Amino acid sequence: MRAAVLTAPGEIGIVERDVPVPGPGEVLVRIGSVGVCGSDTHYFDHGRIGRFVVTAPLVLGHEAGGVVEAVGPGVAPTRVGERVSIEPGIPDGTCRWCRAGRYNLCPAMRFLATPPVDGAFAELLVVPDGFAHTVPGTVSDDAAALLEPLSVGLWAARKGGITAGSRVLVTGAGPIGLVAVQCALAAGAAEVVVSEPDPARRRVAAGFGATAVTPAEVDGVGPDVLLECSGHPGATVAALRALERGGRAVLVGMGADGLALPLPVVQERELEITATFRYANTWPTAIALVATGRIDLDRLVTGTYPLERAADALVAGRRDPASIKAVVRPQT
Amino acid sequence: MRAAVLTAPGEIGIVERDVPVPGPGEVLVRIGSVGVCGSDTHYFDHGRIGRFVVTAPLVLGHEAGGVVEAVGPGVAPTRVGERVSIEPGIPDGTCRWCRAGRYNLCPAMRFLATPPVDGAFAELLVVPDGFAHTVPGTVSDDAAALLEPLSVGLWAARKGGITAGSRVLVTGAGPIGLVAVQCALAAGAAEVVVSEPDPARRRVAAGFGATAVTPAEVDGVGPDVLLECSGHPGATVAALRALERGGRAVLVGMGADGLALPLPVVQERELEITATFRYANTWPTAIALVATGRIDLDRLVTGTYPLERAADALVAGRRDPASIKAVVRPQT
Amino acid sequence: MRAAVLTAPGEIGIVERDVPVPGPGEVLVRIGSVGVCGSDTHYFDHGRIGRFVVTAPLVLGHEAGGVVEAVGPGVAPTRVGERVSIEPGIPDGTCRWCRAGRYNLCPAMRFLATPPVDGAFAELLVVPDGFAHTVPGTVSDDAAALLEPLSVGLWAARKGGITAGSRVLVTGAGPIGLVAVQCALAAGAAEVVVSEPDPARRRVAAGFGATAVTPAEVDGVGPDVLLECSGHPGATVAALRALERGGRAVLVGMGADGLALPLPVVQERELEITATFRYANTWPTAIALVATGRIDLDRLVTGTYPLERAADALVAGRRDPASIKAVVRPQT
Amino acid sequence: MRAAVLTAPGEIGIVERDVPVPGPGEVLVRIGSVGVCGSDTHYFDHGRIGRFVVTAPLVLGHEAGGVVEAVGPGVAPTRVGERVSIEPGIPDGTCRWCRAGRYNLCPAMRFLATPPVDGAFAELLVVPDGFAHTVPGTVSDDAAALLEPLSVGLWAARKGGITAGSRVLVTGAGPIGLVAVQCALAAGAAEVVVSEPDPARRRVAAGFGATAVTPAEVDGVGPDVLLECSGHPGATVAALRALERGGRAVLVGMGADGLALPLPVVQERELEITATFRYANTWPTAIALVATGRIDLDRLVTGTYPLERAADALVAGRRDPASIKAVVRPQT
Repeated sequence: MRAAVLTAPGEIGIVERDVPVPGPGEVLVRIGSVGVCGSDTHYFDHGRIGRFVVTAPLVLGHEAGGVVEAVGPGVAPTRVGERVSIEPGIPDGTCRWCRAGRYNLCPAMRFLATPPVDGAFAELLVVPDGFAHTVPGTVSDDAAALLEPLSVGLWAARKGGITAGSRVLVTGAGPIGLVAVQCALAAGAAEVVVSEPDPARRRVAAGFGATAVTPAEVDGVGPDVLLECSGHPGATVAALRALERGGRAVLVGMGADGLALPLPVVQERELEITATFRYANTWPTAIALVATGRIDLDRLVTGTYPLERAADALVAGRRDPASIKAVVRPQT
Repeated sequence: MRAAVLTAPGEIGIVERDVPVPGPGEVLVRIGSVGVCGSDTHYFDHGRIGRFVVTAPLVLGHEAGGVVEAVGPGVAPTRVGERVSIEPGIPDGTCRWCRAGRYNLCPAMRFLATPPVDGAFAELLVVPDGFAHTVPGTVSDDAAALLEPLSVGLWAARKGGITAGSRVLVTGAGPIGLVAVQCALAAGAAEVVVSEPDPARRRVAAGFGATAVTPAEVDGVGPDVLLECSGHPGATVAALRALERGGRAVLVGMGADGLALPLPVVQERELEITATFRYANTWPTAIALVATGRIDLDRLVTGTYPLERAADALVAGRRDPASIKAVVRPQT
Repeated sequence: MRAAVLTAPGEIGIVERDVPVPGPGEVLVRIGSVGVCGSDTHYFDHGRIGRFVVTAPLVLGHEAGGVVEAVGPGVAPTRVGERVSIEPGIPDGTCRWCRAGRYNLCPAMRFLATPPVDGAFAELLVVPDGFAHTVPGTVSDDAAALLEPLSVGLWAARKGGITAGSRVLVTGAGPIGLVAVQCALAAGAAEVVVSEPDPARRRVAAGFGATAVTPAEVDGVGPDVLLECSGHPGATVAALRALERGGRAVLVGMGADGLALPLPVVQERELEITATFRYANTWPTAIALVATGRIDLDRLVTGTYPLERAADALVAGRRDPASIKAVVRPQT
Repeated sequence: MRAAVLTAPGEIGIVERDVPVPGPGEVLVRIGSVGVCGSDTHYFDHGRIGRFVVTAPLVLGHEAGGVVEAVGPGVAPTRVGERVSIEPGIPDGTCRWCRAGRYNLCPAMRFLATPPVDGAFAELLVVPDGFAHTVPGTVSDDAAALLEPLSVGLWAARKGGITAGSRVLVTGAGPIGLVAVQCALAAGAAEVVVSEPDPARRRVAAGFGATAVTPAEVDGVGPDVLLECSGHPGATVAALRALERGGRAVLVGMGADGLALPLPVVQERELEITATFRYANTWPTAIALVATGRIDLDRLVTGTYPLERAADALVAGRRDPASIKAVVRPQT
């Protein structure tokens, strides 16, 4: 089978690899679509993200869907032919956090496209049975792949406690901000204000249902919940200051080393501040929301690429400001 | 001013009363619309509900909206002219439950149209400032009144913990069941199945967005949440048995004295069972959901009546099986 | 090795079996102490509990502790020699409930001493690595075994939301009621009233810290939380009626088929009613509470038996009303 | 009656004032004991705390207990003679936060000894009926006063979600840190480590039940909950870094303007960070915990002063490093 392999920063090669064989409890998935995430691009550009360093050829891509091609021992043969979305983080299933249902905090987590684990820019991939979630026919191949970023937004909405009538502020209208907007609305938010400096992105956010968009800070009544998706410390602090008494902030955007927390504001308003690290138990909900049309993932796709052009997909966001989400289709 | 007064079971008379004067912290509301609730009809028919007995002439009606006509001392004069929805239960504001935010459990609660407190089938009514909630122009007069039954459904949805992706079963498609369906959807439910023996009501439920309707029990995967709105013990027990492991039931429908709880089912699945008694802190959310179009209350109105025909309004549901909600408009 | 095997109702035989060999991810435990549970006695007497029928020779006993004697592939050899408490329910680790941290609801749960899974009335037992919890030297062998019933009480206290200052009613002062009393106190309850008809048991409950004991119903201010440990429907209903507005009931006691739920009480007070099915994620807390002396399990032990006298241990509670907990020590 | 009045920074005078008359819903309390809080000392030293500026003579003291001497209209005359603890923050009772049970966030809160509201360094004080909480005979006069700082610790323990078995880190062993230790233990914490640079304070903390004390950072397994009571940004950040995955921090200590939040740590561990602003609904629990002996407030008292020596009481902490809590007894 073919795979797109990162061999050095900025260098992707298409190589032939042996068809992987699913072991006990595993399934082999023929990959139909893989979304490009900012972390893929970062590995492509720099060969590392923090303490994760690419020291050997690595297959990128962790937002993936496809069709079950074969199953290993102990897996129901009826799974062959099922269309699936892949949950890319595999916890050990036995540690304190796994037992408690917070498996995203599992210290032994193995995550696709994170060194040394290969990802999904390949024709075929083996994953554990339980991490290949069946999707109905109403979920497209691309949407199956994009259930992964949707999970990020969904987890943020859950952490934020968004419920019917919530007033929500989303900072940053990149791909995660846009799914966050949809998740907030799906969870019943009555107001979803998006703060984003780029006017084109603001327009896109409005198209996804934001009830208001603004280039900077919010006036008027403060939001109950902040979903911070910009990763920008200044925007984050300004947004925290905008929160209503008793408000709740979820810090999703990554990249900053620190944040100058305005302590008196946090204390006088008893704000709650938390963050997301990936997600847990999101796929069933994510599938239901897309299958019932409450959330539209296909509209996020602004470019599709064959496997040979994976490198172009990885830099699509940089080349075209209007790009939201590039997807690689390894079978093409 | 005119008021429709219950003088004996089945007897309503229109009487002239003095215009009430708002005291400190109170507002005088010119009533625009009043919904008829099953409890009103029950008082009309029987002169009592349980331990609450009508021993003196009583004005019925507790689902009401209108316009602020005057304010008492200590209330901002700018409130005059505001369109408002009336929250009909006035707690003492100081007891253990009020302090804890569960004011619906206040033992000293005074509730409109519950002996000896007069209700809203009248041209004018005095209520405390904080219980006349301002509504925007996008909320009709009837909808302002029907925020009260909406609050019942909203409180049930909150108690049920309905969130994005929930699978919900609503038993009973009367007025409360129909708002429960809308509340479940507004809170993000992916499935809302309605169980209701009457085919016409099932059609109405489908029209309000139920994803499935059924005359009896549900097959297949069990729901996560039950909103029991039928008040029928048999239907309730069947619905409890249908709940998924870890499921949550909210018993909204009243009237039964007891329920034969299937203990082994409750234990083996660790079901959680609770109930609603009116509501607390629902108006801001209810207003937001109607104002943003997420919930449609006007479609519930199947008949409008002038004050003189209050008695007809009270029995509309009995005379016309297609009736959902009758409203009295006291200014007509 | 020797094992005590139930061959027919009322018949236990000591048989020689091969020493079991720990497989991958498993440990072999030399059993030091095994508590007798009411379910063991029920299997001994009747050969079945509901749909679980003993159709082949069965080793009873699921409250067990001991010392790791050997480890299977993939388990740290340093575990050999560790003193452990065994968690007897082994979930599949992959289903919806396991993933969400509610592994006690796993439909594929395998539970010691539940047909066809053998239990711990034996010299040696193989269990999965993660279900043999290391205990410190301050936890006795018997206490290591009795962390299992402690987990039942701890889970009930968690489900009841008991916290600093809670007022708790415990109905029934059998072994589970007595651990429930201790768990309520450990979680900060300011009042723990025990309702129990037997005067000797009431005295024991007082000795374990109950702030009041009563033969029947409670007078005065209602409790916030009910931990129902009697399994008696009449006592349960009376206790539900005693609950304060907003109170929470946890139905732990088993055996009844149904309960005549007093619906108006549940509704007017918005009671929450739930139940426990075994427990999840309790061992670390249980160990900490015993190791720090907050909970005393050794005082529950009223009789110790060698393996040969397992049958006597199983009926100790019936023969001696003062018996609380009999333990079998398989090495003697 | 006599009152100790702050007339300028560092100047307290004893003046005669008219006996206040309780209005409707109010009670007149003869003050028995008043604790000195750091905020009192700060007003004494600087004449202001942030935006609150002393512009007119002000009576300090907001930790107070006493005996009901008279009642105003609408209050049960049987309250006369009751020993009470005063809750010093009076919310409006009608705003969004009061309705929701979070009355400590009420924007219209009036708080004793906060300009322009006089406090309790006086022989008599009028407070609303519901904010004079009856205490039993087992609660001393001083303890009645110190239920106020206990409430701060209790609120922190609640916000931290401390429950049976929690592992807690308390930073700072001043008066609030010491009540926090007791509250953590009362709520079931299995470990309460206190980090405090001063060795004498560490010894006191150990005396109050801390399971370990340390001059600086914690080694080994991280705590589940941090109760930050030092107000020191450096210590706070170090403590945040020590928290276990999924840990929860409550920022109680005040004084710092900001905090350099270590964002990657917060994100990778999904920490939850919140803060306390006073407290809500704590008195019933606080009374129960002291009345049942679970918490000892009298041991906090290191000095008692007559009203004439209020100024000495205000600086006792500065003069004597061993001072924990000075109390003024206005009747002496």
